[in-house]
Amino acid sequence: MTSAAALEDVRAEFIDAVKSVIGDSRPGLHDPHFGGNEKHYLAECVDTGFVSSVGSFVPRFEQDLARFVGAAHAVAVVNGTSGLHLALVGLGVKPGDEVIVPALSFVATASAVALAGAVPHFVDVSDATWGISPEGLRSYLAGLLERRGEGFVNSHTGRPVTALVPMHTLGFPVDADGLAEVAGEFGLILVEDAAESLGSYDKGTHTGLAGQAAVFSFNGNKTITTGGGGAIITADPVVAERLRHLSTTAKLANRYEFDHDQVGYNYRMPNINAALGVAQLEQLPEILERQRALHNMYADAFEGLRIGHKPSETTGATSNYWLQTFLLDRKFAVHKNAILNACLDEGITVRPLWKPLNRLEPYRSSPSDKTPVADDLYSRLICLPSSPVLAG
Amino acid sequence: MTSAAALEDVRAEFIDAVKSVIGDSRPGLHDPHFGGNEKHYLAECVDTGFVSSVGSFVPRFEQDLARFVGAAHAVAVVNGTSGLHLALVGLGVKPGDEVIVPALSFVATASAVALAGAVPHFVDVSDATWGISPEGLRSYLAGLLERRGEGFVNSHTGRPVTALVPMHTLGFPVDADGLAEVAGEFGLILVEDAAESLGSYDKGTHTGLAGQAAVFSFNGNKTITTGGGGAIITADPVVAERLRHLSTTAKLANRYEFDHDQVGYNYRMPNINAALGVAQLEQLPEILERQRALHNMYADAFEGLRIGHKPSETTGATSNYWLQTFLLDRKFAVHKNAILNACLDEGITVRPLWKPLNRLEPYRSSPSDKTPVADDLYSRLICLPSSPVLAG
Repeated sequence: MTSAAALEDVRAEFIDAVKSVIGDSRPGLHDPHFGGNEKHYLAECVDTGFVSSVGSFVPRFEQDLARFVGAAHAVAVVNGTSGLHLALVGLGVKPGDEVIVPALSFVATASAVALAGAVPHFVDVSDATWGISPEGLRSYLAGLLERRGEGFVNSHTGRPVTALVPMHTLGFPVDADGLAEVAGEFGLILVEDAAESLGSYDKGTHTGLAGQAAVFSFNGNKTITTGGGGAIITADPVVAERLRHLSTTAKLANRYEFDHDQVGYNYRMPNINAALGVAQLEQLPEILERQRALHNMYADAFEGLRIGHKPSETTGATSNYWLQTFLLDRKFAVHKNAILNACLDEGITVRPLWKPLNRLEPYRSSPSDKTPVADDLYSRLICLPSSPVLAG
Repeated sequence: MTSAAALEDVRAEFIDAVKSVIGDSRPGLHDPHFGGNEKHYLAECVDTGFVSSVGSFVPRFEQDLARFVGAAHAVAVVNGTSGLHLALVGLGVKPGDEVIVPALSFVATASAVALAGAVPHFVDVSDATWGISPEGLRSYLAGLLERRGEGFVNSHTGRPVTALVPMHTLGFPVDADGLAEVAGEFGLILVEDAAESLGSYDKGTHTGLAGQAAVFSFNGNKTITTGGGGAIITADPVVAERLRHLSTTAKLANRYEFDHDQVGYNYRMPNINAALGVAQLEQLPEILERQRALHNMYADAFEGLRIGHKPSETTGATSNYWLQTFLLDRKFAVHKNAILNACLDEGITVRPLWKPLNRLEPYRSSPSDKTPVADDLYSRLICLPSSPVLAG
């Protein structure tokens, strides 16, 4: 068989299996699921005149989110990037610090660090969770860091290493408790990038509860959406209050005076976006069921294929299956781009994983461990049409 | 007459006049006016699934805004602060630069400079426009700056002074053409803070067109609102494209790869907010008429009062009368806080001007000229209930 014929077979095998799930529909990668009170609550905002950051849906969204996740406090912000930036600054990351982030993530994980004036330091992810593993991180930091004063510095750059931002990739939870232990050993602030993991659990505990704070995203492509939006959760009431204060221009509470006690941000989620979020949270259990059902549909459709398989959650982990994926076997990785193009030619919305962050122009000179697992996953993972409507 | 009796008279004189305008209604300082397609367009977002930053209302809002103002390009962002930050960074302000801003402004003017890593340098405003005047600025900069290489530095701090951000206070336009001349003389980037001046004109030209860029705000309290939102306008297509790129994580356009060529921001306005904005822009002429009518109602009500007057636009200027104000005569300034408290006790929403920015904790050590006019206006100006519904 010629190589061209082999490629043709690979493409057909993949596309036939995908079509057996999505039929003739051609949704986006992850279209939102609006089946509840969205229009009703939006109309309420217009009728009452409360569309901006002062309005009852904002605290209601925070409370509903905190209750679902099991967090003490939630602070709603304009998006996940801003949430990560705010959490890092509010928890004490300083300009010139280094912050440990996975090489495999959406760019926001690194840009939030850069926005804080700090330097992302990339580490590899594990084959098991696609996120940072406690064992790998402990070993890497032990070889990298040296104690200076109260904290640790990177022995090569001399910069303080002050925080760790693991990411729960595509909804698969990392071992955040294990990472919290490592963070404790090296005096690192732990902020979980839970942008993709609303509804994901590790050993029965929701993602985002292991460190000082965690950040969710409610962008249009996420499990639930507020249009644009994010939220920081934390167990610490002092931290919650500080982040809320910083997110609202650091304006001091008083009867009428405009007084601000530090450089603040305009990061508060508007009421209109929170209204959408409240309606969406009401449907979260149903959406999670659909995402899981869709995973099963794809797993069945890909069963027995020779070119790859549908990755599943590991023992003890509960994925929200936010983005459905197909992992090509290594010998078929060479066909990844051809498959992506063939799908897109047929109107099937697929995409690769993010290019590892340590290869991006703005971060090429940032410190990085070798990242063979991130590179491998990037070389052969395909993200599939994942809209909940497909399991409707 | 005792002093207590005198204060009682002052309060009564003021409150009676305000009540003659607002009657028994007790709106907020500036509640939005929703009388058009708001609910219709919001429902369209939900029905089509486009609520996030990809959606047809975002470019439509940008085009409608640009057309109204007379700008070539508009870039919609999450709020005015982010717009100012993005414009400064995108036009070349570097960390460590100094940026000239008025001492009299909402804190965002200074915090946007700080977010860019630069240092705000405060100057006074003029009695005539309540904003920076070309004559005052030229004289101040001539004494402050010295040429170094291609540009100018502050001769006291040695820092490059690279940009000027005048603000159109409460809708009263500054002489932006005059300021553009001064900016040209000293090689300064000119970014107009037009957050409050949508619908304000100087000699027939809309505010925001004199420099390299200008920024509007669509917060809930502005002339029109998108819930939270802002926009940058510019005549330069290259600048517009750069700002749009930076506002969307600096992601390169290609078929499926996630590649980013610089540190970017997550600043793009979501579609749901833009939908509200499109509906609001349709009503902008009517809202401006109401704001002007309300000015006339207050001017009539305050006619002949001994304690102060209603400030009006000066010759050649067209104010949008976004916030209605009352200027106490200097000898009654001592009663400002008592009047504010008395109004608030009766449920009448008033507020003072912003505390001058060079007095705020985070900016006390920033360079500043003396600011007697800003201090004077702060000491005696009262912002009145300004909701367009009051002129309905």
